[in-house]
Amino acid sequence: MKIKELGEFGLINILSRKLPDTSNMVIKGIGDDTAVVKPHAGKLMLLTTDMIIEEVHFSLRYASFESVGWKALAVNVSDIAAMGGTPSSAVVSIGIPEGMEVKQIERIYIGLSDCAREYGVDIVGGDTVKSPGGLVINIALTGWVAPDKVLYRSGAQPGDYIMVSGPLGRSVAGLYALNNFLSGNDSEMIREVIAVHLFPRARLKEGRFLAEKGLVTSMNDISDGLASEVIEICQASGAGCELYTERIPYTHGVTEIAAIAGKSPLEWALYGGEDFELVFTVCENRIDAVQAAMDKESCLPSIVGRILPTEEGCSLIEGTARKVLTAGGYNHFK
Amino acid sequence: MKIKELGEFGLINILSRKLPDTSNMVIKGIGDDTAVVKPHAGKLMLLTTDMIIEEVHFSLRYASFESVGWKALAVNVSDIAAMGGTPSSAVVSIGIPEGMEVKQIERIYIGLSDCAREYGVDIVGGDTVKSPGGLVINIALTGWVAPDKVLYRSGAQPGDYIMVSGPLGRSVAGLYALNNFLSGNDSEMIREVIAVHLFPRARLKEGRFLAEKGLVTSMNDISDGLASEVIEICQASGAGCELYTERIPYTHGVTEIAAIAGKSPLEWALYGGEDFELVFTVCENRIDAVQAAMDKESCLPSIVGRILPTEEGCSLIEGTARKVLTAGGYNHFK
Repeated sequence: MKIKELGEFGLINILSRKLPDTSNMVIKGIGDDTAVVKPHAGKLMLLTTDMIIEEVHFSLRYASFESVGWKALAVNVSDIAAMGGTPSSAVVSIGIPEGMEVKQIERIYIGLSDCAREYGVDIVGGDTVKSPGGLVINIALTGWVAPDKVLYRSGAQPGDYIMVSGPLGRSVAGLYALNNFLSGNDSEMIREVIAVHLFPRARLKEGRFLAEKGLVTSMNDISDGLASEVIEICQASGAGCELYTERIPYTHGVTEIAAIAGKSPLEWALYGGEDFELVFTVCENRIDAVQAAMDKESCLPSIVGRILPTEEGCSLIEGTARKVLTAGGYNHFK
Repeated sequence: MKIKELGEFGLINILSRKLPDTSNMVIKGIGDDTAVVKPHAGKLMLLTTDMIIEEVHFSLRYASFESVGWKALAVNVSDIAAMGGTPSSAVVSIGIPEGMEVKQIERIYIGLSDCAREYGVDIVGGDTVKSPGGLVINIALTGWVAPDKVLYRSGAQPGDYIMVSGPLGRSVAGLYALNNFLSGNDSEMIREVIAVHLFPRARLKEGRFLAEKGLVTSMNDISDGLASEVIEICQASGAGCELYTERIPYTHGVTEIAAIAGKSPLEWALYGGEDFELVFTVCENRIDAVQAAMDKESCLPSIVGRILPTEEGCSLIEGTARKVLTAGGYNHFK
């Protein structure tokens, strides 16, 4: 059925029924001028938003409708994770191109609902409009965090180690595989990187755990590539850093696909982005505690660098060579 | 300067500096993975979102960049007003077409900042992406309201009067004037309706006042036209209604421009939308209190109908004729 036949309010009715039941924090969800939600006593509110646009952030040539819905929410959950918080209520705006089928929009909401269930998010409202261009989805997400546990970018201290929560470069490798039809090659290795690109996981448990235990001094999620995320931490903290290229973790799939693509896995890790791993800084005497704790969370954190005094700037160490580390990563408009 | 020359992070820096200082409720605004905001003790959280897309919700043929920024936020403030709440923190996503000038985006943020100042909103974050289609702006806004004061659509009781906070049809009249170059005719009457269309005011003080004094039983803001807003109240409340056409208030400008356009002002009031007046229901013995209170808020509320038992349905009374009231109003996709 075409959306035109159903109209805006008919569509909202159908989509609302696809969504999981909301938690007991939601007093009023979809169906009034605004949602009404109970705050979490004693916590601070977190608020984030991300807009994804067809042919900029995703293409329906390779992405399923379910994956578009999943990813639109997961990227916001990852931002809450990077503060050490717990996600709570989301509002979803969707700009729908003319001629799109109701079934296709329902599939977006299936992905969205799966992601909401996975991370305990209540979808409490939204806006449904037509788009003369491509598909546009915007999600805004609230979260809650204890005032003494919230993790900013700005807490890194010279001497702290820089760690990442898992292997990097998988999302770009997955995108390369999708764009070059490597999915025809149905190996586990390729399925893994494609899954990371289309259905990224937010490191929610891990971020919350690190924050609650007070184990780390600053944290970011890796949405734009390791280089720019680390530089953000350094700028916010008034510090410099060095990254050790040989310490950056990759999966077998990333090195294999990079070889096929004639690219360097290092470039993908530093500038690729969308891995949604966490990068965080840890005081030297807490490294063992982080390693031990994170093992339990089925996550293998790696030391990839060190925070330096600000006057030493940001460097990349490759063997014995030291290069200036520049931001790069995905930058809209450049 | 083209945005391409500046890049995403350069643009975010410039735009952030345009925004008003945030209130002392904001612990962290722009510049981390999420914003961090203090909740209002003892209040419930409100959350709403609206997406506006070029050539669907506005056209740059007639709308200034400042008006686009103002309206994107004002429509969200109006939703908070309709719950009896106070707006708090907003996140702004903007999809920017290639080739747009930095100065043009700055002008959007000037309008946005003016609106934020007017209604006491903190802009605490957002997302800045490129758009292969037209300009897209999404705003999500939080607000706060006392648990015993929040006003839903669902509280209307048979016998309640239906009131509106001010004249209707002005926004459509303004749109007609803009589309038909009536602004060349520089009369006060035309300037007024154009201002309502481009720079709508949210009835924030009035909504909050009505909620705090406990004077009304249900409330909606008129974004889609009086007919569909009243029907929403009736459906949510399990009630019927009758609207008295001769009681619907218009300004001189609306009747004049409707005459020029060969349209009926009634049609504009019922189905035009975007007036952002409030429609609310009032128990008979509180009518005088509402009228007296609202006068002080420089707002002239009018009785336009009455809530009926559900089995009587929803009707429009024109003289001695009774017609079935249908929703209509702006419906995307139909």
